[in-house]
Amino acid sequence: MRIGIIGTGVVAQTLAAKLSEQRQSVMIGTRNADQTLDRNASDVYGNPPFRVWHQQHPGVELGTFAQAAAHGELVINATAGAASVDALRLAGAEHLNGKVLVDVANPLDFSHGMPPSLVVCNTDSLAEQIQRAFPQARVVKTLNTVTAAVMVNPGAVAEGDHHLFVSGNDPEAKAQVMRLLGEWFGWRHVIDLGDITTARGVEMFLPLWVRLFGPLQTPMFNIKIVK
Amino acid sequence: MRIGIIGTGVVAQTLAAKLSEQRQSVMIGTRNADQTLDRNASDVYGNPPFRVWHQQHPGVELGTFAQAAAHGELVINATAGAASVDALRLAGAEHLNGKVLVDVANPLDFSHGMPPSLVVCNTDSLAEQIQRAFPQARVVKTLNTVTAAVMVNPGAVAEGDHHLFVSGNDPEAKAQVMRLLGEWFGWRHVIDLGDITTARGVEMFLPLWVRLFGPLQTPMFNIKIVK
Repeated sequence: MRIGIIGTGVVAQTLAAKLSEQRQSVMIGTRNADQTLDRNASDVYGNPPFRVWHQQHPGVELGTFAQAAAHGELVINATAGAASVDALRLAGAEHLNGKVLVDVANPLDFSHGMPPSLVVCNTDSLAEQIQRAFPQARVVKTLNTVTAAVMVNPGAVAEGDHHLFVSGNDPEAKAQVMRLLGEWFGWRHVIDLGDITTARGVEMFLPLWVRLFGPLQTPMFNIKIVK
Repeated sequence: MRIGIIGTGVVAQTLAAKLSEQRQSVMIGTRNADQTLDRNASDVYGNPPFRVWHQQHPGVELGTFAQAAAHGELVINATAGAASVDALRLAGAEHLNGKVLVDVANPLDFSHGMPPSLVVCNTDSLAEQIQRAFPQARVVKTLNTVTAAVMVNPGAVAEGDHHLFVSGNDPEAKAQVMRLLGEWFGWRHVIDLGDITTARGVEMFLPLWVRLFGPLQTPMFNIKIVK
């Protein structure tokens, strides 16, 4: 499958590496490919510059936001949430219309320091903003409730016995994403929360996630819904 | 132990009944006790009027907000979150100062219909508002992430193998509440998230809780943190 990933950070890299391993045709999109490859500094978390990662993953193509979106039969938004709508505008509605657009971003606001707050919440969500900006895209919110390493390897936590969620207005798009989450990454327990407004719930889970990170001393965790 | 419970709704009733069963000395506080006993209508969920419940639980005393707070060595806020600070002001700082004040309320806003939004979130929380309004009270946020029946009987869900959280600035108060949650109700897995600002996380979990209620078709659920 041809997959376009918008964003070059750790989430984008982790998804691209896993999908590329599985012989999917992956293109990562960035604002300016030359500038992205020229960067020499590590990111704020100490991860090496994109160039180093890209040398280790030559199977992943690099293009502009628009090229990556055009490349994808399915497009993944893995940009920083506060910049997602702008990045997707540069990708172009014409390259998103009719496609499944998987939104894995969190609208975190680090401008007031740690812990982050959210740039949008309560009566709106990033996923809804994206769906409103691109009414012809079939937005499915998922994966944002776990760290990147768990996204692509749920079995690394409690043998995969925990839950993920999907939110979206298009039942067929959600069904396809739920199937792909299983095929690509091994997700066995995915709950369909309902329409795109239910993304408020999974985005507003982040402040609890961030605070659990302290006592748990690891990002390798998730929640299991028990009845 | 003498316990004052502020509020007369289902959460207050459920906590009062369970604590009274255990021979704790419980007083429920309301704005006007005569008016509360005069009510004949069921609440919006179809629960019978308070008077009916009170006849079935004669061991629970009824008083004003101030009388209940004065009665309690420990005070529980079980009012509707949007009204909590006002109710506690009527209870009186002089009856809360120095005491552990367990806040189990959620600041839900039903004014725009279902699902509810929150009246405060993101960069503040109800628990923080209460702590600021009553700086001498030792506020501990807990129990708000589960339905009333699970609060007092965690064993009803997955044999009690799931998690609760505490948030608060006073380590001794949190330790006491964690011990009482075990003794009173049987909570075995309680995570200390940190200071009172971590209450944002558990209050902002509610929008996900509300949306899980749909697919799960029962309020008798909780989350288990798995690593």
